[in-house]
Amino acid sequence: MAKAKKPAKKAAKASKKAKPTKKAKAAPMNAFYAQSGGVTAVINASACGVIETARKHDKKIGKVYAGRNGIIGALTEDLIDTSKESKGNIAALRHTPSGAFGSCRYKLKSLEQNRREYERLIEVFKAHNIGYFFYNGGGDSADTCFKISQLSKEMGYPLQAIHVPKTVDNDLPITDNCPGFGSVAKYIAISTREATFDVASMAKTSTKVFVIEVMGRHAGWIAAAGALASTKDCELPIVILFPEVTFDEAKFLAKVDDAVKKHGYCTVVVSEGVKGPDGKFLADQGLKDAFGHAQLGGVAPVIASMIRAKLGLKFHWAVADYLQRASRHIASKSDVEQAYAMGKAAVELAIKGHNSVMPTVVRKKNKPYKWAVGVAPLDKVANVEKMMPADFISSDGFGITAKCRTYLEPLIKGEDYPPYKDGMPQYVRLKNVPLKKKLKGEFSV
Amino acid sequence: MAKAKKPAKKAAKASKKAKPTKKAKAAPMNAFYAQSGGVTAVINASACGVIETARKHDKKIGKVYAGRNGIIGALTEDLIDTSKESKGNIAALRHTPSGAFGSCRYKLKSLEQNRREYERLIEVFKAHNIGYFFYNGGGDSADTCFKISQLSKEMGYPLQAIHVPKTVDNDLPITDNCPGFGSVAKYIAISTREATFDVASMAKTSTKVFVIEVMGRHAGWIAAAGALASTKDCELPIVILFPEVTFDEAKFLAKVDDAVKKHGYCTVVVSEGVKGPDGKFLADQGLKDAFGHAQLGGVAPVIASMIRAKLGLKFHWAVADYLQRASRHIASKSDVEQAYAMGKAAVELAIKGHNSVMPTVVRKKNKPYKWAVGVAPLDKVANVEKMMPADFISSDGFGITAKCRTYLEPLIKGEDYPPYKDGMPQYVRLKNVPLKKKLKGEFSV
Repeated sequence: MAKAKKPAKKAAKASKKAKPTKKAKAAPMNAFYAQSGGVTAVINASACGVIETARKHDKKIGKVYAGRNGIIGALTEDLIDTSKESKGNIAALRHTPSGAFGSCRYKLKSLEQNRREYERLIEVFKAHNIGYFFYNGGGDSADTCFKISQLSKEMGYPLQAIHVPKTVDNDLPITDNCPGFGSVAKYIAISTREATFDVASMAKTSTKVFVIEVMGRHAGWIAAAGALASTKDCELPIVILFPEVTFDEAKFLAKVDDAVKKHGYCTVVVSEGVKGPDGKFLADQGLKDAFGHAQLGGVAPVIASMIRAKLGLKFHWAVADYLQRASRHIASKSDVEQAYAMGKAAVELAIKGHNSVMPTVVRKKNKPYKWAVGVAPLDKVANVEKMMPADFISSDGFGITAKCRTYLEPLIKGEDYPPYKDGMPQYVRLKNVPLKKKLKGEFSV
Repeated sequence: MAKAKKPAKKAAKASKKAKPTKKAKAAPMNAFYAQSGGVTAVINASACGVIETARKHDKKIGKVYAGRNGIIGALTEDLIDTSKESKGNIAALRHTPSGAFGSCRYKLKSLEQNRREYERLIEVFKAHNIGYFFYNGGGDSADTCFKISQLSKEMGYPLQAIHVPKTVDNDLPITDNCPGFGSVAKYIAISTREATFDVASMAKTSTKVFVIEVMGRHAGWIAAAGALASTKDCELPIVILFPEVTFDEAKFLAKVDDAVKKHGYCTVVVSEGVKGPDGKFLADQGLKDAFGHAQLGGVAPVIASMIRAKLGLKFHWAVADYLQRASRHIASKSDVEQAYAMGKAAVELAIKGHNSVMPTVVRKKNKPYKWAVGVAPLDKVANVEKMMPADFISSDGFGITAKCRTYLEPLIKGEDYPPYKDGMPQYVRLKNVPLKKKLKGEFSV
């Protein structure tokens, strides 16, 4: 397997700052770590990388405090003292899906709109002697991380803000891929292969089309992973519906019809974010259920019903939803290693004096896959969304190109099974001991 | 691990018949094997057991011919010569989900209604010197197997009909469990645990209820497996909706509300077969399959929308559908072993002269789990559906009892990972070489 290397020197230099003199003389400052947005199968592997690496450098970094439920924990001074957790429990984070400290969907407003929130963060950090801010998330949290680093500079508070990349959507720029994505991709590729084997068995008298709905509201990376179900030595008829490609009903139905005529069956992998020519999500049908409640979500049943109505084919459909991003049981080994490496590199970058940066995965070679750890300045990461390049989608819009396959294949490589007991994976739940509050008064979010 | 033992002698005796003299003198007769109904993650492990065991006894059994697409292959004389498959490919069936020879949903009518179909089967068997009929399926196919054995006796054709149990629904009588069920149960238990960890991370500001829809039209065995996500050392708030329990909206909403108030989140595992007080499926879409069964799917969004409308809670929902029954990547080791053992035992029973029987799993001990192979006469199996016993469902109707847990736990024990290449499981696709037809004229089904 590829090994994480030291951050590339050149990039590192660009963002290196002199270490605040305060830190060099006084007792080491503490670190704050928080998980942000939708969790993944491997975000805890990044937490593991942060905490284990910080513990190794206890002369440079004091304790690691985690935000309970993400940044909300910092705002409300609800901090978790990770030093109360055993070495074994921290190690077990590497194989535990979800966010061990809780995450949140809470986007800080702009500095102009809500300066008070940013100042509050600095107050809390000051109260707990926090000099390192590790924020583990996607695009929004990279932006927050960037703003906090700006404000702390402005206020003269010695804070190094490092963003740790995470998102199943794989839409962060600069980094080769985002930890969290590889494992979803592996889960979708495997599930698509398995379900396609199933429908192939049933097609003679029963189901001929299987539809699986996957995540990815704006970018079709996860949908693209469905195409990995089919390989040279195991070709399968897979039709992909990307959010990047406007849905064309006639063209789609002709594609499915062709596949079924040729193979007897096919599988459709549809992104939740697919939109029709009117710009509306296909999933948004304005339906009401028997109880009169608005029926939410579910582009898979829409596609499936269309196939039945227009082609008269029997179908089955699945919606993977959380199962795909929580599926630590079949995580990609590459992904777990990179998630851990990003957490570890974040701490190493901090120790070296970096600020307002994000460690990245740098692809060195495709076959065999080799990668190194790089570093990107946060102002180049924040608010940039990486979409599927046009040359990653096949000309008919229903598949991936060889270039896309070359990119994706290494990301699902290797298995990294969690330990099992009595047939169930042993995922850790931490004690999450709260740190004593030091500030007076409540702060409501 | 428990080992399969020889079929229990007592039961064996009951169904033992003198071997037809024809077989003892002539060259060994061939065997016919077919897969029936919905496929599973381990039905091919049973096929592997049948074929490998038959190959070992080539003095007693000639070739194994498989029906292409199940019993339809026999009716249309579309037989596959499994002797053309390499030893390696047959061995790989053990770790390949789906039905390698194709399955079908095709229920033979009663002997009175369509005697012609049964006679046709005997004609085809006669033409290819088939003396053994191994039928791998659930309740309907046990019935077909029984009828074929009756008719062959009546017609004086020397046929031994052995049913090989398979069904994810776990609804066959006499046998401790049905191969196929244990792997679905494991998949649902693990997925429920993983998704519940996910929702727990998000609950502070976002999703509070996760709903997962599982298979099980009449019997709630698969839904019950969702409860295994919660164990003594990892307690999780799981609410189960069984098809055996009439849906009570007010009681259900109160249960979810309580769980969310106490834990901050919960997961609902809902069986596709849940019915309201009016006796209608909550998911009813008004569609029908080939058997005239209502085509289900989509109770999860109904439940989720109800939770939002009545409790105002944010939700996510998933429909596992084929993913659950095809998920060979996380198959239960117990299940794989039992599926193989049932195929092997079927051949051994045939060699010993049994007819009109089904090998069964006999539970000997719970902890550690020990089991043996037994045998049941088909007239006791056909048309009997094993529901969840009332004392397996907790008194409030939303969970399982300790007795149910004791029953279920051994069935998900152990992992039996398939081999991987470049991150993808290596499932075999057979050559499926057709046998030359011997009969004149077509038979349409």
